[in-house]
Amino acid sequence: MAKKAIGKQSVSFEHPPIICGAGSVVGQKEAEGPYGTCFDLAEEDPKLDADSWEEAEGKMQKKAAELAIDHAGIKKDQLRYVVAGDLLGQLMATSFGLMSLELPLFGVYGACSTMGESISLAAVLVEGGFADYVLAVTSSHFASAEKQFRFPLGYGNQRPRAATWTVTGSGAVVIRSACAEEEDGVEKVFVEETGKKLCVKVTGITTGKVVDLGVKDSMNMGACMAPAAGEVICRNLEDFGRKPEDYDKIITGDLGLVGKDILIDYLRSKGVDIEKQYMDCGIEIYSEDQNIQAGGSGCGCSAVMLAGHILKQLEENKWKRVLFVPTGALLSQVSFNEGNSVPGIAHGVVLEK
Amino acid sequence: MAKKAIGKQSVSFEHPPIICGAGSVVGQKEAEGPYGTCFDLAEEDPKLDADSWEEAEGKMQKKAAELAIDHAGIKKDQLRYVVAGDLLGQLMATSFGLMSLELPLFGVYGACSTMGESISLAAVLVEGGFADYVLAVTSSHFASAEKQFRFPLGYGNQRPRAATWTVTGSGAVVIRSACAEEEDGVEKVFVEETGKKLCVKVTGITTGKVVDLGVKDSMNMGACMAPAAGEVICRNLEDFGRKPEDYDKIITGDLGLVGKDILIDYLRSKGVDIEKQYMDCGIEIYSEDQNIQAGGSGCGCSAVMLAGHILKQLEENKWKRVLFVPTGALLSQVSFNEGNSVPGIAHGVVLEK
Repeated sequence: MAKKAIGKQSVSFEHPPIICGAGSVVGQKEAEGPYGTCFDLAEEDPKLDADSWEEAEGKMQKKAAELAIDHAGIKKDQLRYVVAGDLLGQLMATSFGLMSLELPLFGVYGACSTMGESISLAAVLVEGGFADYVLAVTSSHFASAEKQFRFPLGYGNQRPRAATWTVTGSGAVVIRSACAEEEDGVEKVFVEETGKKLCVKVTGITTGKVVDLGVKDSMNMGACMAPAAGEVICRNLEDFGRKPEDYDKIITGDLGLVGKDILIDYLRSKGVDIEKQYMDCGIEIYSEDQNIQAGGSGCGCSAVMLAGHILKQLEENKWKRVLFVPTGALLSQVSFNEGNSVPGIAHGVVLEK
Repeated sequence: MAKKAIGKQSVSFEHPPIICGAGSVVGQKEAEGPYGTCFDLAEEDPKLDADSWEEAEGKMQKKAAELAIDHAGIKKDQLRYVVAGDLLGQLMATSFGLMSLELPLFGVYGACSTMGESISLAAVLVEGGFADYVLAVTSSHFASAEKQFRFPLGYGNQRPRAATWTVTGSGAVVIRSACAEEEDGVEKVFVEETGKKLCVKVTGITTGKVVDLGVKDSMNMGACMAPAAGEVICRNLEDFGRKPEDYDKIITGDLGLVGKDILIDYLRSKGVDIEKQYMDCGIEIYSEDQNIQAGGSGCGCSAVMLAGHILKQLEENKWKRVLFVPTGALLSQVSFNEGNSVPGIAHGVVLEK
């Protein structure tokens, strides 16, 4: 078996790549939520002075990227690759938003699991010796997502209680290599000075499969995604030989209140109880009085919670080891209108101080 | 600099990953073209007995994947990852088509450059020691692409001469690691026996940036993509210290007749003449009497030409070294309707016997 592969779907990094900078940009609703003060930048104008929602989302990506680069204490040109994506058809926000960075781009799509996918690939690029610094970015925008997947905003459709609210926000992280050397049997890890404090290791990844239990309700994405999240969490625990309590937190992206219950029941049926460690970015990001039904969702949800909150908890040693599992519903307006189900996918990333 | 990185945008693989199996599935028009006999499978029914064009395209991906796995002489479960994407919003063909493979999936989007992107990432995963076997797949379908990007088929719109015809087809390759070892200063490369003949090395990659010269015509994608192709070809030659004649062929994905002229002129203006080595999959795949205007296009175009023709030429030693550059137009119906330009991206892959 490939030397860095472990178990069936995971990688354990011998010389863990380091998240050395992060940036988060959110909209007003997110700024008014319980984590409002954690984010780097809150935009009062949801259109960011752009001509369209899509352009506005792209602008958020660019701002988040610039913040992450700045916080990493590097220059843009030190980045070898950008791994980025969003929810929109043909990755509109990414293609147009990050174009002016003029960096080699791997465009990725994993629905709302994209931050897990982009960090996974960025870590692989860095740890494999292909790059010193890689930027991972993703975003979502309430208005562009509603337009893409559901109804025009002006239609004012009613939202069922299982619906989630797409987060307006973008999160970005800079991942750098940890040049390592074996010396006298003692491992010495050399990391270049960058003058910034953030230093969280990506010690492993567990890459998800598409899981489809036949749920067809685009207003209940928590139910669509929960089985995929459950599969990846089980797989991660098995591949790394860990129990839930080996993690301080097991954090899904945007299952919301409905998906949370399904996930916990699903894992219990497999003999795994994660209730004590469990947290969902979608449940956390808004407070109940913000009229968001089952919680927040979108690529931006887990991305801004990672950049604004999770990494800081690790940095401050409040948590030692976290399993971060962004979750995606593979939904398109076309597949939905054609009567297809909404399969899920999730990608796990192990983060340690 | 990261040890495997060379120049500004390239990677040179120390132990080149090997393309050990390929599969190609095409529609009737492609089967009637000059390369018709090269493809593994030609579908007479463009809908493949499916309920929608999107589902049909997904079925083609699955068939191409199964052919590649079979030709590689491996079992599906030996694959560690699938890196795949398509042109449709939210990668519909990939998500639904490859679901039943039940393999960890990295979904990617690079418009028609996707085969270059997926091979690049598959090679990185394999050479970095993260996987022994990775599958790279992509597809396009004339009917699903027209529906996604332009007009309903029943509308029967006129096509300008600069328009290209989206290839109905899917190509897949299995990439495996070349386990290598240094012994007495002599490099010994061990490759496991798989019982199949295909053995083409991926010796390097050059990853492209988004390039936008402001072209807004979705019926002239050759013009949109040519500058991105030109940039990647220049960069590849510079990063590897090569001249055009160091390649037997420099092969773009789907520039078509208009894009070809722009590319050759663009490169000449930079002092690089590739006319002798140049080939474009889009120009090759159809004959002039097939009413395809400027040529073929779509992710499937370069993918089936790679699987059906290019790899065989290398395998048979007719070509020793090829620069394969799938080219993508970052177009969406929304960005187009909003009056945006169509930026291009291209990803280069160096293939050697």
